[in-house]
This record gives sequence, C-alpha cells and structure tokens, in this order.
Amino acid sequence: MSGPDARRPTVLVLDAAPPAPPPRLGVLTGRARVLHAKDATELRDQLPYADVLLVWGFLSDAVREAWPGRGARPVWVHTASAGVDRLMFPELVASDTELTNARGVFDQPIAEYVAALVLAMGKDLPATIGYQANREWRHRETQRIAGTRACVVGTGPIGQAIVKQLKALGITTALVGRRARAGVHGPADLDRLLARADWAVCAAPLTDETRGMFDARRFGVMQPSARFINVGRGPLVVESDLVDALRKRWIAGAALDVFEHEPLPDDSPLWTAPGLIVSPHMSGDTVGWRDELGRQFVELFGRWENGRPLMNVVDKKRGYVPGS
Amino acid sequence: MSGPDARRPTVLVLDAAPPAPPPRLGVLTGRARVLHAKDATELRDQLPYADVLLVWGFLSDAVREAWPGRGARPVWVHTASAGVDRLMFPELVASDTELTNARGVFDQPIAEYVAALVLAMGKDLPATIGYQANREWRHRETQRIAGTRACVVGTGPIGQAIVKQLKALGITTALVGRRARAGVHGPADLDRLLARADWAVCAAPLTDETRGMFDARRFGVMQPSARFINVGRGPLVVESDLVDALRKRWIAGAALDVFEHEPLPDDSPLWTAPGLIVSPHMSGDTVGWRDELGRQFVELFGRWENGRPLMNVVDKKRGYVPGS
Repeated sequence: MSGPDARRPTVLVLDAAPPAPPPRLGVLTGRARVLHAKDATELRDQLPYADVLLVWGFLSDAVREAWPGRGARPVWVHTASAGVDRLMFPELVASDTELTNARGVFDQPIAEYVAALVLAMGKDLPATIGYQANREWRHRETQRIAGTRACVVGTGPIGQAIVKQLKALGITTALVGRRARAGVHGPADLDRLLARADWAVCAAPLTDETRGMFDARRFGVMQPSARFINVGRGPLVVESDLVDALRKRWIAGAALDVFEHEPLPDDSPLWTAPGLIVSPHMSGDTVGWRDELGRQFVELFGRWENGRPLMNVVDKKRGYVPGS
Repeated sequence: MSGPDARRPTVLVLDAAPPAPPPRLGVLTGRARVLHAKDATELRDQLPYADVLLVWGFLSDAVREAWPGRGARPVWVHTASAGVDRLMFPELVASDTELTNARGVFDQPIAEYVAALVLAMGKDLPATIGYQANREWRHRETQRIAGTRACVVGTGPIGQAIVKQLKALGITTALVGRRARAGVHGPADLDRLLARADWAVCAAPLTDETRGMFDARRFGVMQPSARFINVGRGPLVVESDLVDALRKRWIAGAALDVFEHEPLPDDSPLWTAPGLIVSPHMSGDTVGWRDELGRQFVELFGRWENGRPLMNVVDKKRGYVPGS
C-alpha cells in the first residue's frame, strides 16, 4: 500500500447511502489515490485535496453543501447519474471545473421501464393484481396499444430510447424538446401534442425552464383517458396538481418513478392517489447497473489522466449534455 | 317482423353468459332468421332447425351436450374464439359440418398482453404495486429485457404475433410448432429451447398432442430464473405441477390467463402460488373486440350465403386452422 503521492491524482468518492462503493475502482491502483467521503462534513474536509470528485451517491445534496467557496477544488466532477440538477449550483456552474454524467447507461433500461408502465396501464395489470389478491375473477376489456399516441418530453438519449421503444410497440410518438428541429417539436407544440396524447412521458432534465412544467394547466389540456409517466426528476411535476388531476379524473392514470422528496414521505398523498403507480426511483437500475457506472467512470478517468477530451461533458449553462 | 321463412337460412346463436349478444347481426335482417339459445336445453330444441350455428358463448360445453346424434344439424358452425377445443367432440369432427373460428381478431391484443406480462415480470411491477399499498420505498434492481431469450410454443397467428412483438423488444425468440419447417422448430427441439429460455410462452391449440405438455418434467428443464406464460388453453398446463414448480423455485414466476376450470375456483392454489399472476381469460379482449367478432361473423355469412368458400376453416382432424 502506498501513501499520498504528489504525482498521482486524488479521486474523492462521495459514497451512496446505504454504503455501496463503486465497483471497478480497483483498476486505478497505482494510477490514483482514492479517498471516500460519506457525507457533506467528510466531503468538506477532503475536497481541497481532490483532483477528481466522483459523485456516486447522486441523490444527496452534499456536494452543494460542501463545495469550497474559494481555493482548491476538483478540476473534474463526474456524477453516476443522467440528471445533473443537484450539481447546478452557482459556485460549480461558475467554476472552471468540468462536469460529466452517466449518459448512456440508463437509456435502454428506462425505455423498457416506460414500455412496461404503458403496457401495464393499458392492460389494467394493477387492477388484475388487486383482484387476484381477493380471489376475484373479473373479466375486463383492456386497451389496444398499437395505434395509440405518445408525447415524449426530453430529447436526450433517454427520451430518444423511449421513443424508439414505444414506436416498436406500434405507438405513434412525438418528441418535444427545448427547441424545434428535425424530428423534434419545440415547446410551442407541447400543449397541442399533449391534448391528443394517450401517453405523456416526461424524461426531461430538471432546469429552471422545466421545473414544474407538468402542472394543473398541463394536466387540464390532456384527454380524460390519458396517462402521464415521469421518469425524469420529481420537481418537473407539481405533485399536488397531479393528485388533484387524478382525483378529478382529468386524466385516467399516472406513474411516477421520481419525486420531489425521495424517499417519498410516508404521509404523501401520492401513495394512494387513484390510478397512480409509485415506484422508488428504479426505472434505470437493471442488474449490473452499478458495474456499468463504475466501468464508465474508469473509462473517463483513462481519458482524463492522458489529457484526452472527456465524453458526456455537461453544458453547465444549460444543465445537460448537449445532443449530437 | 317476419316469421319463419323457408327461403331464408336460420342462424342460431348460442349466447354468452352473462347475456352479451353479438353486435352487427342486425345487418342480417331480411337475409337470415336469427334465433337465440342460452344453454344446452334451448340449443337442443333449436339445433335441428338451424342452418348455421354461431357459438358466441364459446366458454360453454353446451354444443357438445346438445349436438344432434343424427338427423338435421347445422351445415356451418362458427365460434367467436381462436381455440376450437370445446367443439372437437367426435360427432362434430365426424360430421360434414364446416367449422370456422375467429382467427385474426385476437392476435395483436394477445401479443401485446404477453409483452405486458414479460415487461411487468422483468421490471418486478407486481412487487412494486404491493410495496406501494404498504407505503414502502424499496429500491430493487430489475431485469434488462433486450437480449433475453423467449421460446414461444404455437405457430398460429397468435404465436406469430407474439414472436413479432417480443422481437420488437429486443428479445431473441424461437418458435416451436407441431413440425419443424422454415423459421419453426419441431417438438424435438422444445426441451433444449426451454432450457435456455428466459420466457416460455404457450399459445398452442389444445389438442390430444398438446394437452398437459407443460408438466413437472418440462418445468424441471427450465432455468430457475425463467418465467412461464400461458395464453393458450388451461389444460395445456398441469396446474398442480406448475404450483409445485413455483413453490420449489424451479422457475422464478409465471402468468396464466387461462385455466382448466374457468372461472378459477375460489379454493384453487393458483390464486396464491408464489410469483404467479392470475388473470381472468382476458388477454385478447381489447375494447371493441365483441364488435370485431360480430363483424367477422357477418363477413363470413356474406360468403356463405353466396356460396363462396369460407375463411378460417378448421381442420377438424388437427383441431386448428392450418397455417399458410
């Protein structure tokens, strides 16, 4: 074992809680000194010595709390998540620290998860499971999926994977982004597209522009038969407005995998909102995901230590990795 | 209203219970005399006068019970179902009565239903719904669907639609039928394919050859991580063997939409078998299905009354409509 070494860079890992250290970092032996911090206090002590910060526990606000106001700070921060909203605080945005994300790891898993939700709601599976628990034989007619319409908000690789997957199910799909371009509708088309969508799917990054974009007015323009799915970030949705919209049957159902507060508090009305499926921020987390995230960081580190340009670099003004 | 008329053929409808008469028969006004029977007794009284029998209540054994041993009988029987097993009794098989089925109506709906089950099991949705009911936030890793393997048994249009749908999800799919041919494996390959399948899907017709084909031995060759889905007919599966296989964790889960006895009796161990989703024979029944079945019969009737050949004619020796 070796001690601190000026020639080797220091990688500081903000661990996830409960502790689940990143796999694959063993390959950095001899190439980097790896330190760990489990919370804002430990992070604050160690950040001045870190060249690189790996945000493995990406659901914590510790980075914002511990970021050094001035002086030494990491030159590169990598987050093991697609969304970077928790890192978009002014001091990091203004700094020359480079920020990268886990672009690519979650695309196909989340697209499959959205397809699972669409099919489950269309085929009324939650009710089937409820009837089974009561040994009730209740035949129902369900929905034909092919030929329905979806409106997907968010043009990153996750949104694009969702579009591809829904099209494979025969769903006519429109994609909405920050600005209109080939194959992408601009914000001006959103209400019109939502008004005729059977499925409204939110996979947008959380930015000042998108925060609260799914509110009472937006649920109000949807069809009573429509379902809403959020796999982006919780604050994209005004949760109390969604509960109201479901209670008043403005829309037929919804599924949330992300929430304003996670874990979802015990007393949240979302747990029992009619027609709502609540899942614990797991849409992208298929078996092997942690290993893939570890591999991705190691690959990026290899580029960084050799002075090659990083991939998945976040545009800190916009709050996401710009598309190709 | 007109009375019996020797020049117009008589169509006898075996109604479904609870009564749900076939839509669209109004267009036969002036072209046929339409009578209704609700059970075997009424059927027995009226069958001798029927030229055509429409088996609308396809889950009943009334036709077998009421079939005239000799003398006048319908020249054409149409069943509003894909499976014809309940009509494969010796007297009807031996007769020169032509038998047609609802081939085509259920293909896409059942394929979507199978996709819904595959995704729901892969993404652990039943557990998610259970945790939600208890306000439990339990993050889990779920399965990646693309790249898994399915073995689909049954090469009719339903089996083919299932294959197409699963392939669209990125699943590698093998199709097994009564005899090997281009794109279809024969029965000799079944165990080998099941042994490496993540998803075993049964969409076979119920015949003497297929009855009980999914038994302890077949569940025994599957992987412990495999799931089994039956959308064919209940007796294709030895239900007690499936319960055993699930309890002993020979396989990870299953979903049955069809059963030996329907509705599934209250005291069936299937209701609570671990990892089993029970649904009430509804996989093909999307909104509008009854109307589509009615339209299909009217179309066939138009051919029949003009002496043109019928479509969807069952090979009564084999027990299904032979493929193209």
